[in-house]
Amino acid sequence: MTDTIFLTGVVATSPRHVTTSEGLAITSFRLASSQRRYDRALAKWVDGDTNWFTVSTFRALATNAAGSVAKGDRVVVSGRLRVRDWESTDRSGTNVEIEADALGHDLSWGTSVYTRHVSVPA
Amino acid sequence: MTDTIFLTGVVATSPRHVTTSEGLAITSFRLASSQRRYDRALAKWVDGDTNWFTVSTFRALATNAAGSVAKGDRVVVSGRLRVRDWESTDRSGTNVEIEADALGHDLSWGTSVYTRHVSVPA
Amino acid sequence: MTDTIFLTGVVATSPRHVTTSEGLAITSFRLASSQRRYDRALAKWVDGDTNWFTVSTFRALATNAAGSVAKGDRVVVSGRLRVRDWESTDRSGTNVEIEADALGHDLSWGTSVYTRHVSVPA
Amino acid sequence: MTDTIFLTGVVATSPRHVTTSEGLAITSFRLASSQRRYDRALAKWVDGDTNWFTVSTFRALATNAAGSVAKGDRVVVSGRLRVRDWESTDRSGTNVEIEADALGHDLSWGTSVYTRHVSVPA
Repeated sequence: MTDTIFLTGVVATSPRHVTTSEGLAITSFRLASSQRRYDRALAKWVDGDTNWFTVSTFRALATNAAGSVAKGDRVVVSGRLRVRDWESTDRSGTNVEIEADALGHDLSWGTSVYTRHVSVPA
Repeated sequence: MTDTIFLTGVVATSPRHVTTSEGLAITSFRLASSQRRYDRALAKWVDGDTNWFTVSTFRALATNAAGSVAKGDRVVVSGRLRVRDWESTDRSGTNVEIEADALGHDLSWGTSVYTRHVSVPA
Repeated sequence: MTDTIFLTGVVATSPRHVTTSEGLAITSFRLASSQRRYDRALAKWVDGDTNWFTVSTFRALATNAAGSVAKGDRVVVSGRLRVRDWESTDRSGTNVEIEADALGHDLSWGTSVYTRHVSVPA
Repeated sequence: MTDTIFLTGVVATSPRHVTTSEGLAITSFRLASSQRRYDRALAKWVDGDTNWFTVSTFRALATNAAGSVAKGDRVVVSGRLRVRDWESTDRSGTNVEIEADALGHDLSWGTSVYTRHVSVPA
């Protein structure tokens, strides 16, 4: 339950799909999430600041995401947050990752045609 | 933030789409959500009990849901929970509703072809 | 992750603490959760409808809750939602339960003096 | 609803309480959140990696937090996530903040004595 996050946003990079030597499918992409807030002066909802995340999916979700999600799509995501510092020879930084438990196209912004597969997700 | 819920499940009834006399689009359906739990004796994930909800969507999300979601689809939903008692002349009961903020097909169980619409959701 | 809920509310009954014959500590109480919403006409936050839940806690959390939580307290809760129908000889109904993963006093409404115990929660 | 996060963790710094020239009370502290995961080989729950956050509270919650929360306390937090890059003359980095909606002591790890204040939180 800890560090569980739910969010909606725009897929900002083409999803990258790899299979490890152990056979684990992984699909990942960058996600831009703009927070909507109600502006009392304007009396309407406006975009707030944008958060950037790296979203990673695994196994059946990774395979299906690779065949479904494209740059520019609006998606809904839930998962566990991971905040990680990194360092290379000349630079360092912080990466904010989401290991996705669930992912889907956001129907507030479009329609989707869905094909359900029969197998149980691993 | 209060009473916010996130869940995944199976659409159990054909979505019902109506437009009120004020022009508000509403789409609603029943959702069956089976909790997955790790069975230590079996050393694998198994289905637990099932929760039943009425999911309601409004405005652009309602219109897009009506054109996208079918009985049997696996979906991801977030929204606010509403627990309501009801009474008729000879019966009474409790309905557990979710007013959805976000909804999408669950890519753990299938693939989807998405068409993003240009307008901003109301 | 499925059916995860987070909410705040008022403890509406005195917590009931029992220990099963297997030695499992359980503390449970009713929780009233009023949804706050922004009323654009009044230009302020107002109370909306109230949801009622049975909150159950187990093990170390149950023992500490029994010694800390009283009727009337404001609390924050997260856990898994369970919607269950029940039937007796002459009546039937639906109970909405939360199996709490985490529980604490809501510091938006008061102050608390905390004593941390050394043991790891079971 | 977007970028909503719920988590539990340990308060890692003494809370810092300030009041702005406009009279806004702010209390903030660093939070270390260790993810617990079930290790199938060991057949028990173990600590995973640790996420670090800056938690900020405002208004009544800030005032009560300043009078209640100390370094080393276990807390439950919900709020909105903000990922922000920063830059000074010679360094740069990323800060991961949580603007807390709700905060309380985690009763899985200790007991608390609560005093409810009568006023409605701003």
